[in-house]
Formats: sequence, C-alpha cells, structure tokens
Amino acid sequence: MQVRALAFDVFGTVVDWRTSIVGELEEFGRNHGVEADWQCFADDWRAGYAPAMDLVRSGELPWTRIDDLHRRILDELLLGAGITAISDDDVDDLNRAWHRLDPWPDAVAGLTRLKERFVVTTLSNGNVSLLVNMAKRAALPWDCVLSAEIFGHYKPDREAYLGTAALLDVAPDELMLVAAHPGDLRAAADAGLRTAFVFRPAEHGPERTLRKPDDAEFDFMADDFLHLADQLGA
Amino acid sequence: MQVRALAFDVFGTVVDWRTSIVGELEEFGRNHGVEADWQCFADDWRAGYAPAMDLVRSGELPWTRIDDLHRRILDELLLGAGITAISDDDVDDLNRAWHRLDPWPDAVAGLTRLKERFVVTTLSNGNVSLLVNMAKRAALPWDCVLSAEIFGHYKPDREAYLGTAALLDVAPDELMLVAAHPGDLRAAADAGLRTAFVFRPAEHGPERTLRKPDDAEFDFMADDFLHLADQLGA
Repeated sequence: MQVRALAFDVFGTVVDWRTSIVGELEEFGRNHGVEADWQCFADDWRAGYAPAMDLVRSGELPWTRIDDLHRRILDELLLGAGITAISDDDVDDLNRAWHRLDPWPDAVAGLTRLKERFVVTTLSNGNVSLLVNMAKRAALPWDCVLSAEIFGHYKPDREAYLGTAALLDVAPDELMLVAAHPGDLRAAADAGLRTAFVFRPAEHGPERTLRKPDDAEFDFMADDFLHLADQLGA
Repeated sequence: MQVRALAFDVFGTVVDWRTSIVGELEEFGRNHGVEADWQCFADDWRAGYAPAMDLVRSGELPWTRIDDLHRRILDELLLGAGITAISDDDVDDLNRAWHRLDPWPDAVAGLTRLKERFVVTTLSNGNVSLLVNMAKRAALPWDCVLSAEIFGHYKPDREAYLGTAALLDVAPDELMLVAAHPGDLRAAADAGLRTAFVFRPAEHGPERTLRKPDDAEFDFMADDFLHLADQLGA
C-alpha cells in the first residue's frame, strides 16, 4: 500500500463540535437572557444536518451550503424554543459558531506530523469558507481545503471521494480517508480509497457511549492522530 | 474599502518560474547528455501556455489541466530540438519542474505577514496538485489552494474570479487579486474585485525589461509582498 495523501473528515474527527457548540449556546443564552437545554439544543442542531443534506441530495433543495443548512435548522430550533426576539445579525453570529469549533487536543500536533509525510487535506461537508475560518482560528495546518461544496456532492456521494483523488492527482487507493464515522469510511472504501478510523468516544458527549467498530473493517484503527502518525511512520 | 481576502496569481507573482525552469532544464541536459538553448527553451515552454489554454477556452480541447498542457508543449519542444530518446518517466519528471518552482525572496515572509490579517489563497491557472506540491516544497503558507481547475475556467474568464469570492463567502469587492500581470488584474477589476499590482521586473529574465503600469490603474502598487503588507497594515 502506498498512501500519498490523507483526507480528513472534520466535524467530530478533527474538531470537538459538541463541546464548542454547547459553550457557544450557553454564552448566547447569557448574553441574550434566554434559557434552554443547550446540550439538547446542540444535539438537535447537529441531528438536523443529515436530513437537511438529504434534501439537497434528493433535489428537493438546490445546492445549499452547510452554513445555510445550519441556519435553517437553527431558525426552526429557536422558534421551537420560543426564542424569537434576536436580531438577524446575532442569529447569524451564533450560526457561525460552526466556524469556531475547537480541535481535539491531539489534532494540531498530529496533523503537523502527518503533513511531513503526506498531503493533508480536509474532505468535509462543511463549506470552504467555514473550513478556512476554522483552520485559521485553530491553526490547523492543511495543505489544501477541499469540501463537498467544490464537488457539488455531499459525502457519502462517491463524487466527493473520487473528486478529491482527482484534484490531488492520486489514484483512489493512494488516498486515505481519516474519519471517526464508519459510514463515511465505508463509502470511501466503496469508492476505492484506503480508510483510517479514529476513535472519538466523546463526540456525542458523556451520556452517549460510542462503540469501536470491528478491528478488521478498516485499514487502520487509531485512538487519535498521534497514534495514527505512529502507525504510518510519520 | 474593506478587503477580507487576497487571491494570488502564482506563476511570476509568487514564484520565479523562469530561473527555476532554466535550472531544471540545464540539469536535465547534463543528466541526459543533450544540449539546447535552455533559456530560449524555457521561454518557449512558457509562451506555449496561453495558446494552449485558449484551445480549452474555445472548446477545441475539453477541460485539460496545466500539467497536461505543459506536457503537450514540452513534447513538441523536445521533438523540435531533436531530443527524442528520453523515457516517458523522465519527460514526466521534467514536466513536473513546474511543481518545483522557487518563490521570489520576499514571498514566504510577505505571505506570512498578510495571512495574519487576511485570508490568503492561490488563484492560479495551475492545477490543484501542482499548487499543493509547490506550496509544500516552498513552505508557502496558504489558507486555501484555489485554482482554475476547481472552476473549470481559466483566468481571465470571470468565473474564476467570481468563483473564488463565492467559495470564500466574500463580496467581489472584498476580494483583492494580487498579480504581476496587468491583464489578469484588469479582468479581476472587470469582475468587481480589488487589485494589487506587484512589480516583478525579472520575471522574463535579464534581457526583457518590464515596464511598470500606470500608478492610477490599480488599487495598490507594490514592489514586493513586504511592501504590499506595509501598505495594507499587515
């Protein structure tokens, strides 16, 4: 196996979206004097994301960026929580919390090591501007910022995986997807990519225990990016 | 004026293609025991690039990456020079000289300063893999690697300029093209972008003196990236 490039899923794999979003929601609540179960609100916000992408995939919505899908879901959740007196600018600022997610503690150090040996790119359903703003804030050292937005196809559509290989000018089996989500990795494997599972048991918070998938299913199994770098000799 | 992002032309603006290509050709000649006027060869190689892109723009060729356009031109030039006994792998390696161009002396330091204040992206006709390889080798600190390849349109088509603004989620007049080429800047201005001219008098070598364009034509005139950073307060 000669892997030349690593493509990283971002939400949950590189960044701890839930802790960051809950923190931003709590701050929003304090600043605006509104209350809600912000942990639950964060989970509902995230849970709305896959169905929203399905509206795009089915053609019910034209191509719509994640920023705009996040905003649709947020508007519904705020309405449902009876929070209606917030200015559009302030809702927009809250929506951009997804641009301000903190990385997992190993992410920057692990990417820095992996970058010495491989091309490291994002392959996220997040839009390019979200990923660029996130990377600048968190000092994520990407070689390249690729997104579903560039391919006009959300993962797990195969166009996203094959499009990444094509832009990086590598064969599909020279590209490895790194992700914390078995479904994403299975779709990548179906498209011919190599796969590395990174276990992020805390992605959904302390009350939802995640199970590690079977060792045999993916090319590499890692506890974090440093462990992956060890295994890849980076 | 509120500029939020800077898009950089690359060949000639960020990197000194001619010195690098002449050096690579001389090394190729020594390694293979072949001779030619390598300065002239380099100029002809570069000169073939605009007509080759025009074949794509006119539809005579389907979308073709710069790597493949460079290779077509190179094959013709080698044939014309009577250099015919080189293996395909060795010609391919020579063709990838365009991935190994050295930056102008101010480029890395200037980009590093500008990146503190602005999103800095490539906007090059070079393909993504070429730009990524170049950036890794030369330590160019891009936030994002955008290319005509992503838009399916070579500059100066307006889709390339407007597509960059769209992916970065900025208005056209919040994006500034930085380039050493007036034609590129004029097309960017026509699309609504801001413009910064950087004077690279040595781009075409010691025997072709370049003229600085009129001061009034572009938003900024800079002698190099450090001078541009000074003017932009970065």
